[in-house]
Amino acid sequence: MPKPAGEEKQQKAFGWAATDESGTLSPFHFSRRENGDEDVTLKILYCGVCHSDLHNLTNEWGFTSYPVVPGHEIVGVTTKVGKNVTKFKVGDGVGVGVMVGSCKTCECCQQDLENYCSQIIFTYNSHNPDGTKNYGGYSDMIVVDQRYVLRFPDSLPLDAGAPLLCAGITVYSPMKYYGMTEAGKHLGVAGLGGLGHVAVKIAKAFGLKVTVISTSPQKESEAINRLGADAFLASSDTAKMKSAIGSMDYIIDTVSAVHPLFPLLSLLKVNGKLVTLGLPNKPLELPVFPLVSGRKLVGGSDFGGMKETQEMLDFCAKHNIAADIELIRIDEINSAMERLARSDVRYRFVIDVANSLSAVG
Amino acid sequence: MPKPAGEEKQQKAFGWAATDESGTLSPFHFSRRENGDEDVTLKILYCGVCHSDLHNLTNEWGFTSYPVVPGHEIVGVTTKVGKNVTKFKVGDGVGVGVMVGSCKTCECCQQDLENYCSQIIFTYNSHNPDGTKNYGGYSDMIVVDQRYVLRFPDSLPLDAGAPLLCAGITVYSPMKYYGMTEAGKHLGVAGLGGLGHVAVKIAKAFGLKVTVISTSPQKESEAINRLGADAFLASSDTAKMKSAIGSMDYIIDTVSAVHPLFPLLSLLKVNGKLVTLGLPNKPLELPVFPLVSGRKLVGGSDFGGMKETQEMLDFCAKHNIAADIELIRIDEINSAMERLARSDVRYRFVIDVANSLSAVG
Repeated sequence: MPKPAGEEKQQKAFGWAATDESGTLSPFHFSRRENGDEDVTLKILYCGVCHSDLHNLTNEWGFTSYPVVPGHEIVGVTTKVGKNVTKFKVGDGVGVGVMVGSCKTCECCQQDLENYCSQIIFTYNSHNPDGTKNYGGYSDMIVVDQRYVLRFPDSLPLDAGAPLLCAGITVYSPMKYYGMTEAGKHLGVAGLGGLGHVAVKIAKAFGLKVTVISTSPQKESEAINRLGADAFLASSDTAKMKSAIGSMDYIIDTVSAVHPLFPLLSLLKVNGKLVTLGLPNKPLELPVFPLVSGRKLVGGSDFGGMKETQEMLDFCAKHNIAADIELIRIDEINSAMERLARSDVRYRFVIDVANSLSAVG
Repeated sequence: MPKPAGEEKQQKAFGWAATDESGTLSPFHFSRRENGDEDVTLKILYCGVCHSDLHNLTNEWGFTSYPVVPGHEIVGVTTKVGKNVTKFKVGDGVGVGVMVGSCKTCECCQQDLENYCSQIIFTYNSHNPDGTKNYGGYSDMIVVDQRYVLRFPDSLPLDAGAPLLCAGITVYSPMKYYGMTEAGKHLGVAGLGGLGHVAVKIAKAFGLKVTVISTSPQKESEAINRLGADAFLASSDTAKMKSAIGSMDYIIDTVSAVHPLFPLLSLLKVNGKLVTLGLPNKPLELPVFPLVSGRKLVGGSDFGGMKETQEMLDFCAKHNIAADIELIRIDEINSAMERLARSDVRYRFVIDVANSLSAVG
């Protein structure tokens, strides 16, 4: 049950929220819980703008509870730590990703797969067990149970590293789980956006041969020269698509619109694996013949657990991997969302929260 | 190029063939190649009737070349062996399954995955590299390269063991490849026909908990009492289907008609695997949300390589596993096909070739 406002001590917070399905964001004053014994409070420095923020703002998935403060690629510095907090001290650089809570006792939680816990508490558009509502990282501060806070490696840039907390782990986790990390193997990355461009970088760090598959032929040069892909396939180029049949070991499919799987499955060798990460709101067409005749699989994956997210951050720090970003002020967020809706971003917007939010408040 | 008839020495053969898309079978005289140095000739004793025989007879998949003699679950005894044949001697009990040739040199062939070789030669409705046509096991004898001939374990019944050569390996191979053999885990078997009933038996031999999922509530008793399944779910029973959500580790989906995957995916736990073996001629609807949110996968698999098929036969012999069959005479085949088309068979027809074919011929 929600507690009446003011019943317990709270911390004042300020961010930008949408209040209806127009998704338009505007300044919003709210409160967060006081820092508990297991909690870490952090001053937010940067927050990435994930495509799912846009889905949630406009209630595209049908479960948005307004007002909503989006943001789950949060980098900040700790300002308070509870008495039971052992992992962090005040002043540490930390990150918070897609989730801020789970049951801690189920099979998933015990296996470091908190992200698949049925009691998962998302960073925003979600409720705590006590009924209070969660708000995300388009805001000045946040309070999070230490289990769901990540040590942010010193060598990672605070701004360009932020998107790793969702986009990074979302491509890293399936590569590990589905066994797509063997050096020399050939990976296709379908869709070159926030997820896809990080997938290219992580895959190259694993030593894979990477081909970007995109509907936008104009992305060829940047895919190869800027991001380090080995090859580029325009999905509209039927001759090149045909000549690439049966050439790939794995495909990471980051396309979130409804799209045909058949051409992608055709690119796979026998035993090929296609992992789909986008969340189209309608089912895809699954042709069964290529699956059966080539022992191929289509699998899903949803970001990652806390342990693996830390591993991913450390991996990216070691390999100098960060997102390619466009840093924006909070008051530029509505126009950024419009650009994001038409995929006009190279490759992730990140909000310079500390240097722009307070100025507006 | 096909060689003119009579250009090389041949062996006379006799079987039943369909000559058009009516699929009606009738007596048919033809010839097979003389036994070569690598070949084994066998007198056919029994041949199972696979559902794909029916698809091929009526040209449902669009690539039937008439006349067609079906049959790829062949059990026989060797009558000739070539001079290079080391695996067999005259008088051995042997089996021939879905394939009788492949390139022998590609990556698949070298990894004992001949069934995924792009140059695969099927047992029937297929051509040899020299252009000669292959005819299947609804016939008195067959000539096969020793690589594609299986040692038929003495303790396996010759008639009820025949369906293992297709139905058996088709369910055994994905269980091994997708890691679905851990004792105590919970397997759903969707569809209780030729493949499904063998899947139940093999899964029980691996120590799995098995639940049959079927559209036919009347199969509950036989699934549990006759085949040894632990539980039964009528897919039309929404209450029971709902209470089984998230309860299964794996599902083997043997349904060959177009059917919804969503209810099956819902039955799976996190990390659950659904392997689809049927070959509907239209794509299935793949809902992506459950795949992503539960890290589930949908995979395919197509019978198995020769080494694994031998392993499966030996496994079945050790665990006393054979198909439940209805033994028929060759002149009963057309009515059997009509019954098969309406799934009226418990659970596989097997033709008593040696005792019925010659009498008609």
